[in-house]
Amino acid sequence: MIKVIKIGGNVIDDSAALESFEKDFARMEGSKILIHGGGKIATQMSKKLGIETLMVEGRRVTDRSTLDVVTMVYGGLISKNVVATLQSLGCNAIGLSGADANAILSHKRSGSKVDYGYVGDVDTVNAGNIKKLTDAGFTPVFCAITHDGKGTLLNTNADTVASSVACGMANLEDVELIFCFEKNGVLSSADDHTSVISNINAEKYSLLKESGVVSGGMLPKLENAFAALRAGVKKVIITSPAYITDSKCPHTEIVL
Amino acid sequence: MIKVIKIGGNVIDDSAALESFEKDFARMEGSKILIHGGGKIATQMSKKLGIETLMVEGRRVTDRSTLDVVTMVYGGLISKNVVATLQSLGCNAIGLSGADANAILSHKRSGSKVDYGYVGDVDTVNAGNIKKLTDAGFTPVFCAITHDGKGTLLNTNADTVASSVACGMANLEDVELIFCFEKNGVLSSADDHTSVISNINAEKYSLLKESGVVSGGMLPKLENAFAALRAGVKKVIITSPAYITDSKCPHTEIVL
Repeated sequence: MIKVIKIGGNVIDDSAALESFEKDFARMEGSKILIHGGGKIATQMSKKLGIETLMVEGRRVTDRSTLDVVTMVYGGLISKNVVATLQSLGCNAIGLSGADANAILSHKRSGSKVDYGYVGDVDTVNAGNIKKLTDAGFTPVFCAITHDGKGTLLNTNADTVASSVACGMANLEDVELIFCFEKNGVLSSADDHTSVISNINAEKYSLLKESGVVSGGMLPKLENAFAALRAGVKKVIITSPAYITDSKCPHTEIVL
Repeated sequence: MIKVIKIGGNVIDDSAALESFEKDFARMEGSKILIHGGGKIATQMSKKLGIETLMVEGRRVTDRSTLDVVTMVYGGLISKNVVATLQSLGCNAIGLSGADANAILSHKRSGSKVDYGYVGDVDTVNAGNIKKLTDAGFTPVFCAITHDGKGTLLNTNADTVASSVACGMANLEDVELIFCFEKNGVLSSADDHTSVISNINAEKYSLLKESGVVSGGMLPKLENAFAALRAGVKKVIITSPAYITDSKCPHTEIVL
C-alpha cells in the first residue's frame, strides 16, 4: 500500500500550516508520495519580474516567461525547501518534476478555445521508475510540472498530477489518494466547516453539481477523484492535512 | 567505473555550447553523474528582482533573498531544463540538490573574514544514496546547492560539489572526475588555447602557482582535483566539453 498525498497552494502559502503538515507527513509510516501545488508565490514572483499573470477559469495562462517562473518557483524554491525540511525531519525526500526520472509525460494542451500556452495534459506516468525510487526508500515529492519527452516542460494542474500518479502506481500496488486542502472535506454548506459530506458517489455528485453545492475548483478535483477510482485506486479522500496522521478527522470519501 | 562530469557556468550561459554538451553527455556510455554550475542567470535574476549581487574573491555573498534566487535558478530553472533536454535525448536524468536523497550535507561557513551568508562547506556525501539512484539506472544531475540537515539549503561552490561527490563515490567504485570548461585544459600561456599542459603533479602545481601561470579560479579547481586524487578518485581531468566523447581531445590530467 502506498499513500499519495496532495497538498494545495493554500497550505504552501501559509508557513505555519506548511510546517505542521511537513511534520505530520514526515512521521506518516509506510511508502508515500507527496504532490504539492504552487500557491501564490509564482504570481508574486511574476509581478516582481514585470510578467503579467493571466488566469482563465482558475487556470494560469503559461507563456514562455511564466513557464520559467513556475519552473523556478515550483521546481526550485518550493520543492527544494520542502525537501530540506522533510530531510531535517527524517524523511528521505527527493524533489522531482515530471521530467525527472521521466516520471510524468504530457502533451501541450491544444484545441481548447483558450490558448493556455505551456500547459500540459498528462499522457503517461512512468510508475516503474517512481517505484524504483520508493523501493529504494526515497519519498518522491512532485511539483506540478511535467514534460513532453521532447525537451519541453509543461505547467500542469496539481490535482491532475496527483490523480495521474495515483492511477499509475495503482497498476503496481494498492494506492490511497488523499487530497488535502484548507477545509475538512466537501461541505454541504460552504460557510459551515462542520458540514462535511462523509461520502460522495457518482449519483450524489450529479445532484451536488446540479444544485450548485459543489462548484468551481471542487469540480475538477472530484472528476480527478472519480477517474482515480475507475483506474483502480483503492481509496480517495478529500480532507484537511490533519487527516494524514489521524484518519478519525472529518473527511469526505469518494466512492464509485 | 563511474564518471563525474562538472560543467561550468560558461557552458550554461551559452545555449549552443550547452546543447552540444547535452548531446555528448547523453550519448556517453556507462554510469555517470553531472554537476552543473550556475552561470550568470542568477545574477541577472537578482538584478531584475532588485537584489544586489555582492561577489568577494569570485564567490557570491548569499543573503536570504540571494539564497532564494539561486535555489530558484540553479535548483529549478537550470536543473529542470537540463533534465528535460537529457530525457529527450534518451538519458534517464534526475535533477537533484544536495538536500534531495540527503545526498550532500554541509555546514554554513563561519570564521572567515567575510560573512558569505548562506554558503555551505561540504561535510559528507551520502554515496550510498547516490549509488541507489545510479544502480536503478538514473543519471543524477546535481546543482550546486547543499543542505545542513536541519532544514537549511546552502549555496556551494560547484567545483567543490563535483570533487566531493567524486570522493564519496570513490569509496564504492572506481571514479573518473572531469572538469569541463571553456578552455582545452590548463594553459601555459593564457592567450594560446593550444598551450595545454598535458599533466600537472603537486610539484609542477607549486611552480605554476609561484610563477603566476595558474591563478584565480583555477587554483581552487586544482586544489579540488588534488583532494579528489588523495581521496581515491582514479583519474582527474581538466578539459573542454569535447573530451567527454573523445578522450583524444586536448586535456590536462592531474596526477599526484
